Amino acid sequence: MERGKFITLEGGEGAGKSTQVPYLKAFLESYGCQTVITREPGGSPGAELIRKLLVHGTPIQWDSLTEYLLLSAARRDHIETVIKPALEQGKWVICDRFFDSSLAYQGAGGGVTEETLYQIYNMIAPDFEPDVTFIFDLPVDIGLQRTRERAALDDWFEKMSVDFHQCIRNKFREILEKNPQRCYLVNAQDSIENISNALQKHLMKFLK
Amino acid sequence: MERGKFITLEGGEGAGKSTQVPYLKAFLESYGCQTVITREPGGSPGAELIRKLLVHGTPIQWDSLTEYLLLSAARRDHIETVIKPALEQGKWVICDRFFDSSLAYQGAGGGVTEETLYQIYNMIAPDFEPDVTFIFDLPVDIGLQRTRERAALDDWFEKMSVDFHQCIRNKFREILEKNPQRCYLVNAQDSIENISNALQKHLMKFLK
Repeated sequence: MERGKFITLEGGEGAGKSTQVPYLKAFLESYGCQTVITREPGGSPGAELIRKLLVHGTPIQWDSLTEYLLLSAARRDHIETVIKPALEQGKWVICDRFFDSSLAYQGAGGGVTEETLYQIYNMIAPDFEPDVTFIFDLPVDIGLQRTRERAALDDWFEKMSVDFHQCIRNKFREILEKNPQRCYLVNAQDSIENISNALQKHLMKFLK
Repeated sequence: MERGKFITLEGGEGAGKSTQVPYLKAFLESYGCQTVITREPGGSPGAELIRKLLVHGTPIQWDSLTEYLLLSAARRDHIETVIKPALEQGKWVICDRFFDSSLAYQGAGGGVTEETLYQIYNMIAPDFEPDVTFIFDLPVDIGLQRTRERAALDDWFEKMSVDFHQCIRNKFREILEKNPQRCYLVNAQDSIENISNALQKHLMKFLK
């Protein structure tokens, strides 16, 4: 059986990544692809337990390196118990956030060096990367406005400075430039329908 | 203020490490040293939360590398928030298990390479190691017998093979041979009083 494809969705808060997941799933299934929808941190029973130590609202203030070690433990469990087995069964895996988010948040945002980030990633998942990464790009002020409108929003996003969010956005754009074969820019200011069409168009080359 | 000393207790299960802690504490305090008693995994509020994911009885079966990442996250938090601040305040820190246990359990026992173990340790705690490590050495069959006698013992120890425990013991003896300045052999078959006297005698050089 042909291995499935591993698709990751990346970008800042409020960029509309999650909104696209059901459209992507329906599109792929219309081509006969089985899909697995997952997310980071979390996505496996073990990683979801680790997630509880990480999401906003935990009583502990981890430093960025500790946070990255926890994320890496979760990522390892998620890859080994969910992502790789699904891909080997020919399923397409759609994952909301993955390693690029660590480059942005713990790296550019948190000050962990790229060397450290890659060293640990290469321990947990040597020679493994997404087939396609969609990077949802949005000006910081618009992302901020959108997250303000969410009912269940915790106040983490607003607590971080605009400079922090700008730094995250810049990092994602840098990742995009450095990985043109893997990464595809999504203009997150566009309509839901237009974005959905753009993702589908880009995925056609894997479906033919 | 003079920096405190960092003392770690290492060895297999049933070796009597914890039994010695109150004697060590009383001895050091009789010399006017303030002490902090701690343990791994755990020892800080954050690390104790991570410990809950690790101790025997967790529903998740982590692979050895994932386990080591979780232990390293806990260790980082423990070092940064408890151990280093105490040492800087001149306190002596007595820690039940530390990095040598990772070399033994996740390394020799679990198959994580020494290169990986040291790479991550050097990220979380560069140029930091115990001043003294007491390695409690005991034949495997005696350790097994002792843990059988503990009322609240979970069955983890017995589930692991004798070969596994022998491998752990051999690793601790290797660590001892490789680090003669830092590590001190404790004959864990000796009486509680004799062991206590041996530890005290060894620590005198730091107290004079």
